[in-house]
Amino acid sequence: MIQNKIIQDFPALLMQENGKRLVYLDNAATTQHPRQVLDATISYYEKDNANPHRGVYELGARATKAHENARKSVAEFLHTEPEEIIFTQNTTESLNLVAYSYGLEFIKEGDEIALSVAEHHSNLVPWQRVAKAKGAVLKFLYPDESGHLTDEEIEKKIGSKTRLVAIAEVSNVLGLRAPVEKIVSQARKAGAVVVLDCAQSVPHMPVDVKKLDVDFAAFSSHKLYGPMGVGVLYGKKELLEKMPPFLSGGDMIQSVHEQSVTYGEIPRKFEAGTRNVGGEVGLEAAIQYINSIGYDEIMAHERDLMEYAIGKLKEIPYVTIYGEASAQYRHGVISFNINDVHPHDTASILDAEGVAVRAGHHCAQPLMDYLKITACCRASFAIYNTREDVDMLISGIRNVRRYMGLGN
Amino acid sequence: MIQNKIIQDFPALLMQENGKRLVYLDNAATTQHPRQVLDATISYYEKDNANPHRGVYELGARATKAHENARKSVAEFLHTEPEEIIFTQNTTESLNLVAYSYGLEFIKEGDEIALSVAEHHSNLVPWQRVAKAKGAVLKFLYPDESGHLTDEEIEKKIGSKTRLVAIAEVSNVLGLRAPVEKIVSQARKAGAVVVLDCAQSVPHMPVDVKKLDVDFAAFSSHKLYGPMGVGVLYGKKELLEKMPPFLSGGDMIQSVHEQSVTYGEIPRKFEAGTRNVGGEVGLEAAIQYINSIGYDEIMAHERDLMEYAIGKLKEIPYVTIYGEASAQYRHGVISFNINDVHPHDTASILDAEGVAVRAGHHCAQPLMDYLKITACCRASFAIYNTREDVDMLISGIRNVRRYMGLGN
Repeated sequence: MIQNKIIQDFPALLMQENGKRLVYLDNAATTQHPRQVLDATISYYEKDNANPHRGVYELGARATKAHENARKSVAEFLHTEPEEIIFTQNTTESLNLVAYSYGLEFIKEGDEIALSVAEHHSNLVPWQRVAKAKGAVLKFLYPDESGHLTDEEIEKKIGSKTRLVAIAEVSNVLGLRAPVEKIVSQARKAGAVVVLDCAQSVPHMPVDVKKLDVDFAAFSSHKLYGPMGVGVLYGKKELLEKMPPFLSGGDMIQSVHEQSVTYGEIPRKFEAGTRNVGGEVGLEAAIQYINSIGYDEIMAHERDLMEYAIGKLKEIPYVTIYGEASAQYRHGVISFNINDVHPHDTASILDAEGVAVRAGHHCAQPLMDYLKITACCRASFAIYNTREDVDMLISGIRNVRRYMGLGN
Repeated sequence: MIQNKIIQDFPALLMQENGKRLVYLDNAATTQHPRQVLDATISYYEKDNANPHRGVYELGARATKAHENARKSVAEFLHTEPEEIIFTQNTTESLNLVAYSYGLEFIKEGDEIALSVAEHHSNLVPWQRVAKAKGAVLKFLYPDESGHLTDEEIEKKIGSKTRLVAIAEVSNVLGLRAPVEKIVSQARKAGAVVVLDCAQSVPHMPVDVKKLDVDFAAFSSHKLYGPMGVGVLYGKKELLEKMPPFLSGGDMIQSVHEQSVTYGEIPRKFEAGTRNVGGEVGLEAAIQYINSIGYDEIMAHERDLMEYAIGKLKEIPYVTIYGEASAQYRHGVISFNINDVHPHDTASILDAEGVAVRAGHHCAQPLMDYLKITACCRASFAIYNTREDVDMLISGIRNVRRYMGLGN
């Protein structure tokens, strides 16, 4: 099993938690980091650290090269060009950048912004604010009973007034991939731009922004085995060029006078102040790590885990799984509840067994409202998880009702 | 000499650059990092990494504690309370947060924003944008011939129409401390808020935001021996509470419904999306490192370096120093030019000698205009620099004109 080798790369997974090996199943919140990523970051700080673009000295040139090489690696990863890649601090900032810079500039009164009710708050609240500021209307797409967005729903909600569609490629609660191809095709007919939140898709599948033909795409390093504090925004060149800058300061300008400013070229126009180069280098190492395993291997392994976990969960009569309980549509995430048990209690009992899952609204309260629940548990998987981890999860779940005095 | 011990803590300073030990004098752009900082960050990733505030499991609790302990350490460092400390990605984002959230909300048509012509672009361009959006007026304070802001200038430019004063505590070009006490007192009379850019002061002197009575203060981890990708914004509680959020997304909300949102309490209201906890832990370690040396020691050492460097530079007739050439007012920065030599040539020649200084406009073009130059060289110092580093700088400078065929 390749996972036995992979686990050895992740110091955090070799830890003892509550006297047991840590079974970490909160990967949709943040992943752990292979030694290769930590080493790359430290090596940058020890050997190449300076402020990029600013020094004519040799060390400054190395820092600039590290920064731009990381950008090239991210561009290749998303199948696009470096000038269309902007470094931010996280997915949230990437999406806010689009909302402030594209949204406030190009969305007008009466325009419609279409988004799924399953969006993470970071791909929802910024659009609420744009809608409020501009007098635009938010239109929500609702999943069917199995958790999928139907063609009918897409055609009904994305129409001639739609100017922007904000959608997560994979829901962080349901774990299901949205029909991005159908959404983009409908958005094209409507003349709307598409903002794709890839935070939960890039860890589990290759993303080709050109093939998908989305206008913007965002993801975070820290959910992809890379350091915290680095996010990515892909934007189509012709859109980025006509958008005003978002944050202003050093490095994003051409020239500044007392009362006027000329902005620099993309992508630097959107990168104000000193970049997190140490983190970017770590993200680049994470991409190399993923490539060294390969998405075919990753997807096959995670598919096996999903099949195994869902099969086991279905055997437990008092467990409800949210969204279609079929492994073929699942990408790393299974959200569930145990009848008559608060999800926080479930998570606490699992934690005592050494299994880390998340409980809460998962920053997706409108989806919780839609599902008529206030919270749920979420087990989310990564390349290093194993069938043994699933066994630990299942064994923990089977103890929950007993511990709560509810019987099995 | 304590510096000989300190240098051993900094892996980057033990490097050979062009066959010589690296003399790093671009600390105002970014500092190097002691092993203690790198170790703290790695230890976080290896032992405590999770998404703070989000997991009920033990590891999530440790991540939350790491995040909040870092906030407490920063609060103590600035002599204030944790709820007044917001983590951002850098000084630039901190200042943009104030511009977008306070500026666009509370600055009105005809209001005046006062700032020094020596401001870094990050404390200037955001205010240009606020002024443009709201019809406000930018009023510039000009230094006298020695580079200081006089009481007269402060009283002339900060008046009844002034609603906001944006000022760097220490100029990143002139290295001189602004008369913050006088500026705050004048701003209080005018009823204006004061935004203090401390990026260039915190590395060199203690900053007590309560004693200074400023309304906002900002600095970056990476200029203070901490990791890149972490910035700090201090804001007075009563101001932060009435300001709208800046970035929106997960973690900064109380509740979200399809068409409405209730924001969380400060400081989380301003912290959207996953924080750079690994970086924050590194910043905390940097603060501990500084405290272990003590500002008295740091200031005495840096004062000695300034006296020594300025004394040596004054002996060279073809060197122009910008701002008062007196060590007593200098904090870590000496900007200069060599007659008839472009600063980029000077920096390149110094680099060949193993001395890294910066050449350019230093993100302060209006000051360059004011000084009637397009660029200058800047040597900027940190706790690990020595008199030997100054000797290398001076010896390099003495070679420049000869290498350029200009004679000495």
